Amino acid sequence: MEHNLTDKQLIAGFVQHTDQGNEERNLSYISAEIKRLAESGSQLVVLQELHNTDYFCQQEDTRHFEKAEALCGPTFQHLSKSAKGCNVVIVASIFEKRAEGIYHNTALVIEKDGSLAGFYRKMHIPDDPGFYEKFYFTPGDHTTPAFSPISTSLGKLGVLICWDQWYPEAARLMALAGAEILIYPTAIGWDPADEKDEQLRQLNAWRQVQIGHAIANHLPIISCNRTGFEADPGNPESGIQFWGSSFICGPQGEILLQANDQDMASQCCKISLRRSTELRKIWPFFRDRRIDAYNDLTRRYIDN
Amino acid sequence: MEHNLTDKQLIAGFVQHTDQGNEERNLSYISAEIKRLAESGSQLVVLQELHNTDYFCQQEDTRHFEKAEALCGPTFQHLSKSAKGCNVVIVASIFEKRAEGIYHNTALVIEKDGSLAGFYRKMHIPDDPGFYEKFYFTPGDHTTPAFSPISTSLGKLGVLICWDQWYPEAARLMALAGAEILIYPTAIGWDPADEKDEQLRQLNAWRQVQIGHAIANHLPIISCNRTGFEADPGNPESGIQFWGSSFICGPQGEILLQANDQDMASQCCKISLRRSTELRKIWPFFRDRRIDAYNDLTRRYIDN
Repeated sequence: MEHNLTDKQLIAGFVQHTDQGNEERNLSYISAEIKRLAESGSQLVVLQELHNTDYFCQQEDTRHFEKAEALCGPTFQHLSKSAKGCNVVIVASIFEKRAEGIYHNTALVIEKDGSLAGFYRKMHIPDDPGFYEKFYFTPGDHTTPAFSPISTSLGKLGVLICWDQWYPEAARLMALAGAEILIYPTAIGWDPADEKDEQLRQLNAWRQVQIGHAIANHLPIISCNRTGFEADPGNPESGIQFWGSSFICGPQGEILLQANDQDMASQCCKISLRRSTELRKIWPFFRDRRIDAYNDLTRRYIDN
Repeated sequence: MEHNLTDKQLIAGFVQHTDQGNEERNLSYISAEIKRLAESGSQLVVLQELHNTDYFCQQEDTRHFEKAEALCGPTFQHLSKSAKGCNVVIVASIFEKRAEGIYHNTALVIEKDGSLAGFYRKMHIPDDPGFYEKFYFTPGDHTTPAFSPISTSLGKLGVLICWDQWYPEAARLMALAGAEILIYPTAIGWDPADEKDEQLRQLNAWRQVQIGHAIANHLPIISCNRTGFEADPGNPESGIQFWGSSFICGPQGEILLQANDQDMASQCCKISLRRSTELRKIWPFFRDRRIDAYNDLTRRYIDN
């Protein structure tokens, strides 16, 4: 498909899918969808969190560590070919084995020529019923700066992962370090035992907190979430209904693209980075930050 | 009106109105509305930013400094009687003269007994066409902590003002210092020369960035904005169409009360502070903040 692109516009897409059962089938599905998106004009494709596997963090079981791989292991090798073959930048998500006993939840950014543009190790690690991530993932350690955008041929990508999306600090630091887009590979869903009203509040909170980051930082956001039901292997009567709803919004939080909550969806749309430039002139939030008064943001709680 | 209130619930309201032409008429209107809200069960009433006057910041003119008053000047005296007479806590907004050449945009919190519970001087001061606030308002100086909630008989109120609402840092610091509700007296509106689409994006951005703060901090928000058209005294062919749309939302960003964009509105609803307690157990954002990695939030930009 032809797109008329002016300066600082790009076509970005995501692949929202259900777990296809194993790594080979997931990667095969993903590379076909990347090809399809590229044929539709996509220059950037964002994949969901831990897209190769089931969301194994529903239980704490050492056997799942077998699913981990090196930074430039098989997933990178596979997607590197897709990136080069389709001439797209890919944001992927792996279970990384960095060393014996040090595993990370890591996003890879792969350049159009198939090279590794950079990576990001998830900084905020959740742990709540069904999402036992603290067992598997060592929190990301410091880079300089702590939240570093990854430079690509399409611009500087502020890649964060899932639980990070609830933290305005992470979005702000990416923006201050020059990110031009915020990107969130995600795996979040409902406990089917929750009431429908509560489920809707959770989904809306998830969407709106991210939209809030877009607005506060005048940056577009691409958020890609998995979909489908995955039973808890330790207790198959319960599980997670991943709520899909991947979206792309602009720097005023305006929705540009919205997937639904249950279907597989490979979609793309045009993003203008020029909008951010214009908005930051007329609504100059960055000019007026009270950096003299923000010291306590590094405190756990202000109770003494 | 009778409300069945359990522990940690309260009835909160706001008075969204057009400028009534002068301070006497505005205060007279406001005190009547406070009485009406109190009769409907309100325990807390939030007023809009600079509710006594027109939004004089549309032009830079030294004559407007005559509208300023002392912290416990005539507005406090007037509203103190309302608070005591109606047994409500009031969040008011004045143009404060602190000293010759030091003026602030200040919120007052008045206790049910008519005493001054505390005050907050706007920290982030805007300046863009039609909103020339930097001419009038000295930015708030440091309290300890920099953003201090105000203790009242109803709980700790995290009072911020208008432009502050675009800053996740301000909301977060109030939450870390123990605020139980975030409160924003506001004066924001459209330039009628802007296209309708742009106007809608602005209104949505304003709502959603605040909703984002509610979600990220698990706190309810009360936001009270003025309404009506006010011509620019320096150029009566232009002006601001204040967009009203005052709202109250809960700690998942769920809308509890929503005024429209053009009518005067004195409304109230029930807020549960217990919801915040419960949400912070199951979605424990505060537990996982990476305070070791947030140092750069006190930098203007991370470019060296």
